[in-house]
Amino acid sequence: MDLYSGHINRLVEELASLPGIGGKSAQRLAFYIINMPKDRVAKLTKTISDARENVHYCKVCCTLTDDEICPICANEKRDHRTIMVVENTRDLAAYEKTGKYEGVYHVLHGAISPMLGVGPGDIRLTELMHRLQTEDVDEVIVATNSSLEGETTAMYISKLIKPTGIKVTRIASGVPVGGDLEYIDEVTLLRALEGRTEL
Amino acid sequence: MDLYSGHINRLVEELASLPGIGGKSAQRLAFYIINMPKDRVAKLTKTISDARENVHYCKVCCTLTDDEICPICANEKRDHRTIMVVENTRDLAAYEKTGKYEGVYHVLHGAISPMLGVGPGDIRLTELMHRLQTEDVDEVIVATNSSLEGETTAMYISKLIKPTGIKVTRIASGVPVGGDLEYIDEVTLLRALEGRTEL
Repeated sequence: MDLYSGHINRLVEELASLPGIGGKSAQRLAFYIINMPKDRVAKLTKTISDARENVHYCKVCCTLTDDEICPICANEKRDHRTIMVVENTRDLAAYEKTGKYEGVYHVLHGAISPMLGVGPGDIRLTELMHRLQTEDVDEVIVATNSSLEGETTAMYISKLIKPTGIKVTRIASGVPVGGDLEYIDEVTLLRALEGRTEL
Repeated sequence: MDLYSGHINRLVEELASLPGIGGKSAQRLAFYIINMPKDRVAKLTKTISDARENVHYCKVCCTLTDDEICPICANEKRDHRTIMVVENTRDLAAYEKTGKYEGVYHVLHGAISPMLGVGPGDIRLTELMHRLQTEDVDEVIVATNSSLEGETTAMYISKLIKPTGIKVTRIASGVPVGGDLEYIDEVTLLRALEGRTEL
């Protein structure tokens, strides 16, 4: 598309290459940015660079953090004997939002997917096993997604950990709270049935 | 939201302040950026700064361009006696995409809107009148949007130009090509009726 000037075209292309931003949104964003005050543009680019430069993986749980060790791992009030394994930092944040989980986390940064060529070596499993060998852990709660990849990863982790004698659990899958049965897929309905508990 | 580290939070906030990017998209984008190779992040921020620094208003038609005078105004093959007035550079691009318009443009960068407090002095009308006084112009085609603001601006421009004796026209409004009558609003249907032409 050579409708705009070189700088505008390059900006539109660059923005359109980001996930979830289509061609039209990229155009709208580009013109918005060009009309933004210069200091706001400077702030935007600085925030982007700073985040990219200064965010690291926590040395313990591998989540993304500004520090060597993330605030959760550094918090002595948390239960360090319970580790919840999640696929990414957004999932960690989702559980933190509940405010009820007292344990710590381990972030895999992905899930095993033979389809996408992601093997066990591509996610942070070595780090998890190292923690189990060096820390005193009572339970590993596998909270990977309830997708094919998430389930495969959960199975793999359980097989890996079982020989160590540490308890491995999986979060329940079933009907979401407030979910209307008629709109829920069959697999979820069957899962909910299998996972039924006594009242 | 203090779920993430400071740098991530600031990046999410900054991205969410852009138009069309909600909280969830901002989060997804932020994590995507943090995981991008450093050179791609550097390219992204440079493209943003470069566009903001180097894109100017064309000295003739006020469109956004890298040069003093935009390629369209600088093109001697275009018909410089016909000026199409549009609200913004995206609208100019829309007409350029048709490949059929041979004249030049004038970009207002807005439309008169008493509701939003945008008066005639806030859009590039002075520049338009200056062109009409200094250039040989046969016709001004008003191609502002078919919205309340666009129509108000069109009326205002026509009143402004009429005394100069230069022909002022307005693009037709009516049923879009391929549009199904039953889904088109009444105002458009009435416009299409008023604007009917003999076959």
